[in-house]
Amino acid sequence: MNAGRLYLIPTLIDPDAPEVVPGYVHTITAQLDLFFVEQERTARRYLRATGYTRDFAEVDLVRLDKDSTDMEIDAMCRLILEGRDAGMLSEAGVPCIADPGAVLVASAHERGIKVIPLTGPSSLFLALMASGLEGQRFSFHGYLPVQQQERRKAIKELEQRAQREKATQLFIETPYRNQAMFNDLLQTCAPDTLLCVAIGISGPSEMIRTQSIQSWKQSHFAPEKIPAVYLLGRR
Amino acid sequence: MNAGRLYLIPTLIDPDAPEVVPGYVHTITAQLDLFFVEQERTARRYLRATGYTRDFAEVDLVRLDKDSTDMEIDAMCRLILEGRDAGMLSEAGVPCIADPGAVLVASAHERGIKVIPLTGPSSLFLALMASGLEGQRFSFHGYLPVQQQERRKAIKELEQRAQREKATQLFIETPYRNQAMFNDLLQTCAPDTLLCVAIGISGPSEMIRTQSIQSWKQSHFAPEKIPAVYLLGRR
Repeated sequence: MNAGRLYLIPTLIDPDAPEVVPGYVHTITAQLDLFFVEQERTARRYLRATGYTRDFAEVDLVRLDKDSTDMEIDAMCRLILEGRDAGMLSEAGVPCIADPGAVLVASAHERGIKVIPLTGPSSLFLALMASGLEGQRFSFHGYLPVQQQERRKAIKELEQRAQREKATQLFIETPYRNQAMFNDLLQTCAPDTLLCVAIGISGPSEMIRTQSIQSWKQSHFAPEKIPAVYLLGRR
Repeated sequence: MNAGRLYLIPTLIDPDAPEVVPGYVHTITAQLDLFFVEQERTARRYLRATGYTRDFAEVDLVRLDKDSTDMEIDAMCRLILEGRDAGMLSEAGVPCIADPGAVLVASAHERGIKVIPLTGPSSLFLALMASGLEGQRFSFHGYLPVQQQERRKAIKELEQRAQREKATQLFIETPYRNQAMFNDLLQTCAPDTLLCVAIGISGPSEMIRTQSIQSWKQSHFAPEKIPAVYLLGRR
């Protein structure tokens, strides 16, 4: 019996913009009845919204998140090795990038399972493309520290690194801390450092704006409580 | 008169897999008659292959590459400020990421032009998703030095950085140097360092494989002369 394949399935960043996921993703998804998902409920909703018609009573949705144990990961691989193709979905955008899933993919590689990534929206990449900042060298850091003093120190280090390495520095923040992050950026960075704020990516309220810290200070901008990507760069 | 918008248009990585670019990209492209392109000939071929029907005699294709002057960039922005929507295409994948274009986007931001990134395939992101390596922290470095001694030094530094920062290190190489790069990786890195080699991404001959340097040495793999993404990580 041949082993199945593991498809990495992108989902929507903005529920009002379903067109950003290519049709071939739905064609592949339609053939699967085994999914590893971050949350069952939202996975079902996404699958239905994109035309998936199977009866969920006959579909296996297996939870995969940062708390999944080695034993659970092993069981997921066994299902594929027994011959079933599987799909992996995370909550928004592409699995495994600023999202869980890499542990299962790593195990799949160890067992010789073929891993097939499907194209879809990534808020990090869309933000980087549209920022106008250096795209030949960049680093992504996930979330910065929550405590203000440590966060400011991290911001300062990233600003120095943007200059020293001539590399764009990307990070994210939970929506309810956007305003605190934005304030810290304005108060910590040099006036001529370039900051891109990207919110509502791929949706109708998308805003991607790059300007100097000095210009941001004058713009009286207040980031709404929606997911944001921040990018720091230097000319 | 309202200013136009600047759309960042993804193109195919593999010409045999047109389905990876979402249909909404072609719908937007169909409405445009002004494009900033890395090469006119391949831009025309891509547009035709994806259903673009306008007569090219009535379409403006303006060359935009790493040699574009400030004056040329300024003239491109003026066309948009005069009210025309424009599209930017690079040679493979998404513009501005490991590809030219960021200079025009930066100028667009300075002039208040709205920049809209469209979803499509990026070999870097597809490789990172499918590598099983750390996707919460990563750095992309473009091309490493060409001289063997410097390249080996760079590889060693990236390996140390992968360990120290627990961050995946991505880089690319021109196809005809793949074998030299691969040899240097095997001879420079520690046996338990993880290397992902991703070639032919999104196409029928896609191969994305992650294993330890030790396992690569035993596999007698020879990278073909096709575009590759390399990723270094540590457990």
